[in-house]
Amino acid sequence: MKKLVIGLPKGSLQESTYALFKKAGFSIKGGSRSYFPSIDDDEIEIRILRAQEMSRYVEHGMLDAGIAGLDWVEANGSDVVNLCDMVYSKQSKSPIRWVLAVPNDSEIASVKDLEGKKIATEGVGIVERWLEKNGVKAEVEFSWGATEVKVPDFVDAIVDITETGSSLRANNLKIVETLMESYTQFFCSKDAWADEWKQQKLKKIALLLKAALDADDKVLLKLNVNEKNLETVKALLPALHSPTVNSLTDEGWYAIETVVDESVVREIIPDLKGAGAEGIIEISLNKVVA
Amino acid sequence: MKKLVIGLPKGSLQESTYALFKKAGFSIKGGSRSYFPSIDDDEIEIRILRAQEMSRYVEHGMLDAGIAGLDWVEANGSDVVNLCDMVYSKQSKSPIRWVLAVPNDSEIASVKDLEGKKIATEGVGIVERWLEKNGVKAEVEFSWGATEVKVPDFVDAIVDITETGSSLRANNLKIVETLMESYTQFFCSKDAWADEWKQQKLKKIALLLKAALDADDKVLLKLNVNEKNLETVKALLPALHSPTVNSLTDEGWYAIETVVDESVVREIIPDLKGAGAEGIIEISLNKVVA
Amino acid sequence: MKKLVIGLPKGSLQESTYALFKKAGFSIKGGSRSYFPSIDDDEIEIRILRAQEMSRYVEHGMLDAGIAGLDWVEANGSDVVNLCDMVYSKQSKSPIRWVLAVPNDSEIASVKDLEGKKIATEGVGIVERWLEKNGVKAEVEFSWGATEVKVPDFVDAIVDITETGSSLRANNLKIVETLMESYTQFFCSKDAWADEWKQQKLKKIALLLKAALDADDKVLLKLNVNEKNLETVKALLPALHSPTVNSLTDEGWYAIETVVDESVVREIIPDLKGAGAEGIIEISLNKVVA
Amino acid sequence: MKKLVIGLPKGSLQESTYALFKKAGFSIKGGSRSYFPSIDDDEIEIRILRAQEMSRYVEHGMLDAGIAGLDWVEANGSDVVNLCDMVYSKQSKSPIRWVLAVPNDSEIASVKDLEGKKIATEGVGIVERWLEKNGVKAEVEFSWGATEVKVPDFVDAIVDITETGSSLRANNLKIVETLMESYTQFFCSKDAWADEWKQQKLKKIALLLKAALDADDKVLLKLNVNEKNLETVKALLPALHSPTVNSLTDEGWYAIETVVDESVVREIIPDLKGAGAEGIIEISLNKVVA
Amino acid sequence: MKKLVIGLPKGSLQESTYALFKKAGFSIKGGSRSYFPSIDDDEIEIRILRAQEMSRYVEHGMLDAGIAGLDWVEANGSDVVNLCDMVYSKQSKSPIRWVLAVPNDSEIASVKDLEGKKIATEGVGIVERWLEKNGVKAEVEFSWGATEVKVPDFVDAIVDITETGSSLRANNLKIVETLMESYTQFFCSKDAWADEWKQQKLKKIALLLKAALDADDKVLLKLNVNEKNLETVKALLPALHSPTVNSLTDEGWYAIETVVDESVVREIIPDLKGAGAEGIIEISLNKVVA
Amino acid sequence: MKKLVIGLPKGSLQESTYALFKKAGFSIKGGSRSYFPSIDDDEIEIRILRAQEMSRYVEHGMLDAGIAGLDWVEANGSDVVNLCDMVYSKQSKSPIRWVLAVPNDSEIASVKDLEGKKIATEGVGIVERWLEKNGVKAEVEFSWGATEVKVPDFVDAIVDITETGSSLRANNLKIVETLMESYTQFFCSKDAWADEWKQQKLKKIALLLKAALDADDKVLLKLNVNEKNLETVKALLPALHSPTVNSLTDEGWYAIETVVDESVVREIIPDLKGAGAEGIIEISLNKVVA
Repeated sequence: MKKLVIGLPKGSLQESTYALFKKAGFSIKGGSRSYFPSIDDDEIEIRILRAQEMSRYVEHGMLDAGIAGLDWVEANGSDVVNLCDMVYSKQSKSPIRWVLAVPNDSEIASVKDLEGKKIATEGVGIVERWLEKNGVKAEVEFSWGATEVKVPDFVDAIVDITETGSSLRANNLKIVETLMESYTQFFCSKDAWADEWKQQKLKKIALLLKAALDADDKVLLKLNVNEKNLETVKALLPALHSPTVNSLTDEGWYAIETVVDESVVREIIPDLKGAGAEGIIEISLNKVVA
Repeated sequence: MKKLVIGLPKGSLQESTYALFKKAGFSIKGGSRSYFPSIDDDEIEIRILRAQEMSRYVEHGMLDAGIAGLDWVEANGSDVVNLCDMVYSKQSKSPIRWVLAVPNDSEIASVKDLEGKKIATEGVGIVERWLEKNGVKAEVEFSWGATEVKVPDFVDAIVDITETGSSLRANNLKIVETLMESYTQFFCSKDAWADEWKQQKLKKIALLLKAALDADDKVLLKLNVNEKNLETVKALLPALHSPTVNSLTDEGWYAIETVVDESVVREIIPDLKGAGAEGIIEISLNKVVA
Repeated sequence: MKKLVIGLPKGSLQESTYALFKKAGFSIKGGSRSYFPSIDDDEIEIRILRAQEMSRYVEHGMLDAGIAGLDWVEANGSDVVNLCDMVYSKQSKSPIRWVLAVPNDSEIASVKDLEGKKIATEGVGIVERWLEKNGVKAEVEFSWGATEVKVPDFVDAIVDITETGSSLRANNLKIVETLMESYTQFFCSKDAWADEWKQQKLKKIALLLKAALDADDKVLLKLNVNEKNLETVKALLPALHSPTVNSLTDEGWYAIETVVDESVVREIIPDLKGAGAEGIIEISLNKVVA
Repeated sequence: MKKLVIGLPKGSLQESTYALFKKAGFSIKGGSRSYFPSIDDDEIEIRILRAQEMSRYVEHGMLDAGIAGLDWVEANGSDVVNLCDMVYSKQSKSPIRWVLAVPNDSEIASVKDLEGKKIATEGVGIVERWLEKNGVKAEVEFSWGATEVKVPDFVDAIVDITETGSSLRANNLKIVETLMESYTQFFCSKDAWADEWKQQKLKKIALLLKAALDADDKVLLKLNVNEKNLETVKALLPALHSPTVNSLTDEGWYAIETVVDESVVREIIPDLKGAGAEGIIEISLNKVVA
Repeated sequence: MKKLVIGLPKGSLQESTYALFKKAGFSIKGGSRSYFPSIDDDEIEIRILRAQEMSRYVEHGMLDAGIAGLDWVEANGSDVVNLCDMVYSKQSKSPIRWVLAVPNDSEIASVKDLEGKKIATEGVGIVERWLEKNGVKAEVEFSWGATEVKVPDFVDAIVDITETGSSLRANNLKIVETLMESYTQFFCSKDAWADEWKQQKLKKIALLLKAALDADDKVLLKLNVNEKNLETVKALLPALHSPTVNSLTDEGWYAIETVVDESVVREIIPDLKGAGAEGIIEISLNKVVA
Repeated sequence: MKKLVIGLPKGSLQESTYALFKKAGFSIKGGSRSYFPSIDDDEIEIRILRAQEMSRYVEHGMLDAGIAGLDWVEANGSDVVNLCDMVYSKQSKSPIRWVLAVPNDSEIASVKDLEGKKIATEGVGIVERWLEKNGVKAEVEFSWGATEVKVPDFVDAIVDITETGSSLRANNLKIVETLMESYTQFFCSKDAWADEWKQQKLKKIALLLKAALDADDKVLLKLNVNEKNLETVKALLPALHSPTVNSLTDEGWYAIETVVDESVVREIIPDLKGAGAEGIIEISLNKVVA
């Protein structure tokens, strides 16, 4: 039987990745310490790996596909095929950023000021490439973690991952530059993409993952409206998604339902009610395929 | 930019209040120890305060609006505008009551027997007003908590908050009178109400909170029914909510959907099936605006 | 008032049984240590008992009905009326099996090899009946638990309950025979079944429990499709459930909705999209009555 | 190499048994789910078993020795050799009792009233032997647990294990008779006792376990005293333990040290100080061999 | 039988108070939610109360004695008899302070600047007395907690309890004045003190509590030393405590033992070793009576 | 003021290192997330760092001293001064080993078989040096963790840290060679060692840490013995430690006390008692300086 080998990231993302696959329709089983969990699809095998190494093993063909942050794909300089950007709602989650941070009282104000300095980072590849692009020569040393503690005693600056910057601020560091923003990607190897069967299978999985992700940010809105208010109410609904309108047996009344971004619901519900909509209800979704 | 400052209660209600706002469409962020959490609406600022003080600060204009129990609004004798009673389902949650409790073998049988006695309570204002209304003179002392332990050694009676009375019973106390029933309210100051922009904003928020609260007790019921059973089935559905009836392409068949109280579903589903309804499904709701 | 006394199993199943009743529309209250929890239906009384004893007390009329594994019903040899098999989805949960297990290097290869041997088990009744059926004579001793540890030092073989066999493998045991597969049942006494009122009540409860259980494995799928793709799309939907098709006001467009097994969704969504379906959404269900 | 196989009880006593062995000088390793933990003494092997079965396997020679409650030794009617009563301090821990309990309003007042009644218990053997001794005939049925819930609906009385009786009282039951008091024992088989090497090894282990147990209830008291107060101070010390008296280089001064029951320290320290003792200190002990 | 009723503080101090009594020789039993725990001394009864109210009930004779912070004794203006200052080691624990805190950018720099201002505090009595003493008139309002959040929006300044000031700094507040330092006290009523039996009993308890507290900060140091180094070694030992010197059978050798503050051990051990001390050991203590 | 900057390891060792310093007499404060905890010695500053980097920063003079595993000191090839081997009791804790592990069915049987193979490891430096020493050329790739999962799919062999080997076995790997055994060291830079004040301070700290570590494995044994048994009893005590013998006022009786390894206590106590020793007690120690 043909098999697709997919790498999933160990650690903080593992549980949410399992939950996402579950929502997409795939049940992954195996304790959090198992590296070979089982999945209820005989055509797929799962491997658990650190996100940092994922793209390396995908590129070299040991995995067909993997899920990891774009940052580590770039840190490894891996040549892989992007299947699906797993961007989460901007409102509820800031993207991960790689930033250059220095002590609040440091004179380093931009990448140019790093010439001849010492920088600690977990992403040596990312920093070296960035320094080269900017024509700056500096010493980059690998940090095993606790990077914030190293300035100013041990190094002049650090490049670290941050979401809100609060951990940096708590260590009296300021952000000077942003090297890159990152988000999670589902990607595959060029060989897997070239295989007809694997490409079809990967596209299906990507479609289902995307459908599950999109459902987090959207809801189904249903309402009834009298003919006289129909156009006003329809005008209030987001233009991008054409609502499903349906006449009821009750003459002159229509049922409308439409999928909208959850973030706009709080704005339009009061307006819809004001425009004569009745029986407005909001329902959660498991999957949305536009 | 115009701003609305809203106070939310610290403590046992805090988490459920955040969840309610989330369901209503507002995401509040900040650890449970933060007093200034952020909210994803630039027109709102959140303050975390003890429920006991909420109405005092709303009345004096330091907050535009707040959420707190009616009991503490009355204890403070605050003059505020009620925006929305946040009454929870009677079936799943008893209301909070302020009760006069005495030892099982006490001779105190009504408020009249308190003349000259000593009463411990967290709500000195509530008790003093109630004694005065009943023309009874008694010594009321502030209790910092653990009030149940104080009778009969320290005081003759206590006035305490109870939901089920079980904590009182466990301390061998009996409930003699109920001073007041209380539930959570969303209220604002008279000044905020007088401000056109604030009033509109507050009404929208109240509408959304109410929509989220109501959704807890209701579900969407969908079913198909043949023409011959249509009237029988419709007759079984709660009269207050007119169901949406819709003819299907399948001749002679209708699709019915209606929002009903979750508490009646277990009664009507067997009857609906008995009356010929097919494909009955029940769906949870996020928001309901009648 | 007429009353139905129902026994629910203590222990690992207790929490999920409460959740199932909740989903079915009955709220059971009482801490996990209470043996007499309350239920919000005045016609029902709940008792908490060990699953092993349930059928015994139902058969003898001390309970009208109970929930327990079929294995213990058979171990007790109880004569009860099955109301509803509470079989969970095969994909997500393996059934419970009673198996004969021996050390990996044991020479016992089938029931016949047990002649004259010593067997430890929690289900003495089950094993004795099985031995007798196979015409084998062996010593069966009651094990209070930790049965896996007893071979080979204390006994020659064990009969134990297993779901995945992993605990047995971890103790270097192999499974030689399967005595029975078991699943949870809702059953009542013959007397209760003979009582018209009780039978009606029990049927209603069974219908609601079944509706809640079925909803775990099913989802509502909604989509819009143009007339030209209607037949192709309908052909992709599972044949057993006839979908609800409904013409929209938008000429030439139809809305389709249908309840499908969650397990097939990941297969058909890519196909539906390929066949021209638009606005595909998947919604969770609380109850399904086919 | 000669080996001693010792069974330790699974469950609530397991952790404290490990701690006791540790204090006695033996380190047992293996997760709480392991049935074959390792011990740092090559002459000992440990097995983990349910206390209920311990004496049975010791008696039949599958284990050389075991630790379990005297109640289960008697329930099994096992003929074993007692090595050491592991009685805990009476002040800090009540003994386990097997009691006959009936509903508060039951007419059963003594064992005689059980004639023809139905009794549920986890210790069928204990109850049957006790009934026989009292010349009473009654039906005894095995209870898998949750025994308190079974009166009065399912049986007339129960025989259950209790320490403080609070769980019985909470179920509205009253204690009518005490069948037996029980405490933990370290016992061995007659065969092990007959083996010279095993007997010596068992005696050593029993001595060390006893030394560790006794140390829980005793402390070392040290103090200095002038010659003139020497006799008064000595008189205050418990007579059973002759204190170590030692003259200091400081003329006329003596150092006294003595091991005393922790429970009397609070009584004698104030008196010792009053009698002129100086520099009184109290030190915890790991082991005490009188 | 004569009884002493002692109040212990509910909340954060409760567990450590129980542990202290245990160390002193009294075992208190009862879950953390019980207000009437039992103690293994028939002459004592325990009540659990909020520290804020303790001195009020002691003063009025409802309790014979109590443990609470000096701050709340003073806040209540209670006239009680101090039995024992329960001061913890200064090195390991800062005392509790009541401080006046204002926003970092406030112009309030001393008590004098509070004239006409609004102050929130949990200790209204403490603040009012302090203002009066300083001849300042200001509005003091009771704060139910979360006091730090109230400046500058709701009040001009707060008086709050702090140990390290970190919570204040985290809220951008600065400490302007310290109203009082506080520590825990064991105190009794004047009536209890006047009762001969109660006074004796209270003195004994205070002696034992003090002995247990002192043992936290002290250790027993033992060492052997040759005659030639005896004086040098003795000179290194803290002068306040005269060490116990004892000649050994080994001629010319002395055993020294002495109780010293744990905080000096790290300084003197290297010196003692340098001066020729041998076999130096350090032992923990349960109780120390100087 | 002169200062010593000491690095302590972040992670699994952090809590036990704090506890060891506490026992040695130094109280370190700061949450587990703080990288700059405070210590109650004004001459010391603490930094928290990953063990992997410790020796690098000590060698380069950014820290005066540090605590880390010898393995990482060697992996970094750092030239530092060893102050104290922090070897734990061999009985209770196996040393950490770096081992070469391969699949159970691999043909790799020694370092020689690695020629041309691919090895994953967290300690690239350790492995490269070891290969070079053995004259073997192989590809060594850095593993971010989860190294066990990488054979055989991604690499041919791994070099990993193990204590008991159980995690390797659980992944069906076998240990082929041991590259090095490691234990924790307290070490300083050559510059710090050359500084007179720093050397003295470091020696004192090392002495105290060692005293605290040694106390874990030793106990104080005290007993009384009559003259007639004195020599027999003395002969039973470990020869290395000469016991303190002291004649008592009770004629013909001697008190003996001696510090012995905890591991021999279980052997000698039964013998001591057999030889006539009385009142044997065992006491725990905080510090031991031989």
